[in-house]
Amino acid sequence: MGVKLALVVRTDLGMGRGKIAAQVAHAAVAAVLSNLRSAPFAEWLREGQPKVVLKVGSGADLEQVCTAAGAAGLPVRVVRDAGRTQVAPGTLTCCAIGPALADDVDRVVGELSLL
Amino acid sequence: MGVKLALVVRTDLGMGRGKIAAQVAHAAVAAVLSNLRSAPFAEWLREGQPKVVLKVGSGADLEQVCTAAGAAGLPVRVVRDAGRTQVAPGTLTCCAIGPALADDVDRVVGELSLL
Repeated sequence: MGVKLALVVRTDLGMGRGKIAAQVAHAAVAAVLSNLRSAPFAEWLREGQPKVVLKVGSGADLEQVCTAAGAAGLPVRVVRDAGRTQVAPGTLTCCAIGPALADDVDRVVGELSLL
Repeated sequence: MGVKLALVVRTDLGMGRGKIAAQVAHAAVAAVLSNLRSAPFAEWLREGQPKVVLKVGSGADLEQVCTAAGAAGLPVRVVRDAGRTQVAPGTLTCCAIGPALADDVDRVVGELSLL
């Protein structure tokens, strides 16, 4: 696999599966809109949008992953919830890392479990 | 609310929440890429990407919703899973309707429950 988009979600907020799906979709769309002209993005589309949804247990863990991804030069987009339902406004709920070379993404998220 | 993107997911496939999130993200990205130049899409971005995740209980129900949305002139994108995990290849898992005027979307999906 050449490229991938990793979507990392907090599991400590008590979000239902619909809420999680909406947050993850928001992150994926943000990643796409930020990378429309990147070479990895074009490759990602050609490969059928490979994506993986992973979990972390806290906001601190999510921030740590985002920081590591940024330090590695990977595209990172975070989602803060508008807070209309289920969580407080501004809560960091998930992030998108990539689309980027799968090996590079895995170096940052390789230890995380699938949601 | 002016515009929205509805994401409609089947609940009869036994997909886990991570799988559901990935399918919904795929539908949202497909909707975005197909509507980058539409006026409702620009408005949708300005409004912060309002989206709603809804459920149907069968593939027939999902097809019915997609057909109704298409007949109403709404943008529709369906997702068929590659079948690497959890479901058979080519299975229709979810769809995106919109971004479009919320009233128009609601006329098609207004009876569906939140996931």
